[in-house]
Amino acid sequence: MCVLGLGLIGGSLLRAAVAAGRDAWGYNRSADAVDQAVADGFDASTDLVAVLQRARAADALVVIAVPMPAVDGILGIVAEHAPDCALTDVVSVKAPVAAAVRRRGLGARYVGGHPMAGTAESGWSASDGGLFRDAVWVVGVDDHADPVVWEQVARVALDCGSVVVPAESVEHDQAVARISHLPHLLAEALALSGARGGSLALTLAAGSFRDGTRVAATAPPLVRAMCEANDRALLEALDETLAVLEAARSALARDGSTADLVDAGHAARLRYERHERWAITDLEPGTPGWLGRLRNAGRKGGALFEL
Amino acid sequence: MCVLGLGLIGGSLLRAAVAAGRDAWGYNRSADAVDQAVADGFDASTDLVAVLQRARAADALVVIAVPMPAVDGILGIVAEHAPDCALTDVVSVKAPVAAAVRRRGLGARYVGGHPMAGTAESGWSASDGGLFRDAVWVVGVDDHADPVVWEQVARVALDCGSVVVPAESVEHDQAVARISHLPHLLAEALALSGARGGSLALTLAAGSFRDGTRVAATAPPLVRAMCEANDRALLEALDETLAVLEAARSALARDGSTADLVDAGHAARLRYERHERWAITDLEPGTPGWLGRLRNAGRKGGALFEL
Repeated sequence: MCVLGLGLIGGSLLRAAVAAGRDAWGYNRSADAVDQAVADGFDASTDLVAVLQRARAADALVVIAVPMPAVDGILGIVAEHAPDCALTDVVSVKAPVAAAVRRRGLGARYVGGHPMAGTAESGWSASDGGLFRDAVWVVGVDDHADPVVWEQVARVALDCGSVVVPAESVEHDQAVARISHLPHLLAEALALSGARGGSLALTLAAGSFRDGTRVAATAPPLVRAMCEANDRALLEALDETLAVLEAARSALARDGSTADLVDAGHAARLRYERHERWAITDLEPGTPGWLGRLRNAGRKGGALFEL
Repeated sequence: MCVLGLGLIGGSLLRAAVAAGRDAWGYNRSADAVDQAVADGFDASTDLVAVLQRARAADALVVIAVPMPAVDGILGIVAEHAPDCALTDVVSVKAPVAAAVRRRGLGARYVGGHPMAGTAESGWSASDGGLFRDAVWVVGVDDHADPVVWEQVARVALDCGSVVVPAESVEHDQAVARISHLPHLLAEALALSGARGGSLALTLAAGSFRDGTRVAATAPPLVRAMCEANDRALLEALDETLAVLEAARSALARDGSTADLVDAGHAARLRYERHERWAITDLEPGTPGWLGRLRNAGRKGGALFEL
């Protein structure tokens, strides 16, 4: 397995893959991270072409683990030096990566991935072989996915201790807009509202403000990268929420009531608290209708715990 | 000290006051809470008139600890049976209580209060004498406040283990709209957005969604009571935040950028994390300009740790 990019996610993946007994090596553009990885006993290099030639010779799975803005450039080099390798990625948005992969002619052996794990930290120094344990790892089920590659990618996720949730790229992006990107924008707006209240407001701030603004402490480049890469789905989610808040504003101004929003929001939070994943079983990649069945199962809260 | 209302806050206050060595008794409308309080060894009654006559005879501090909708009615009975007693309250909104107090002719000996403490629980059975320890207790510094009553109220807060933050009623209401009521509405809206994403979104939801929606689990009647009692200030805070989110929406649609909101929100969260209360000293209630000095100090993050 060949991991391109040794930041928090790529570095953690290299560690987890080696810990699971895989033959894995990595590339990183900056020598600093590579030197650290080598010092930590891992096989890493700054020579992208050599790393990809090795992947081609070994028929390795290539994993794109660079930030979204660097994805297209690195795919161009993959297309040149390892065009027939099985290909996946760990980028937080799926439809734009899938589109870039297709444009580079690499679609036939590509199955996207997104491990839902991370910390506010970044870089190899923050990487952790246990980062993916008990996490959700989305594995793409877009039309025409190759069942052999799908199984390879799902097995990486399971080897890292994650559970596999199948999702189509656009549906993935819509879901994470709601449960990851929108929460970041609302946290930023809430933090701003508190600070605009001055020292008195900050003195009075307690649990609801502290929790509601926690993720606003995340480094702005990380927040921007994930939100902006998912701009289309995030705009839809944001517009829907703006409409909900506008309606609440009108009801409060007109009737002095917050009942509609508060009752619906409370019911929604309870639905989340009661939500449980269930195990998808008896599904063999490549059997008739397998992609549609996985897609449906993912939509209904299903996950693969083994393969 | 005479506590009117023995729910979570009033009950906790009766417990804390007795624990601090005060002669304190309470009233509650429902016999259930009174029976429980008596069984727990406290002096409590369902006879409001008798309780107030006793307060009048003892020149006790009367504390209004009923929900906002019940405040005006109970003030009417206080005006009839204990009109000259020092008066405070522990309601979560201050300007509407102050207005009701003035309408009942009780303004001369009133100083409002708001202990920033609570749990999702309610009722005497949830009361806890340690609830106010290390909490912030706002004590009103509206024009014409009586310095003797002010000191009485501040001493109750300090006896309960809280620090005293001086604030004018309208400024208090504006501050809590930003740091308590708006966070609840945003949490409700975020919970709704997640649930509308269906099972797939809820399966993928992780830390940012969990923390951002935590307070949406609060019982709707509690959220409604505090938000609706502060409708004017909450509308201002909500409108400001809607404008911030609309601007972010436009920038994302137009330039694909979230930089303005993310950078400002991050800076605001850091300001909150670095914010520290400082001790107001050398201030004696009743000396010239004391109210203005306390008001300024509170605006700048000052608090009284002793008196």
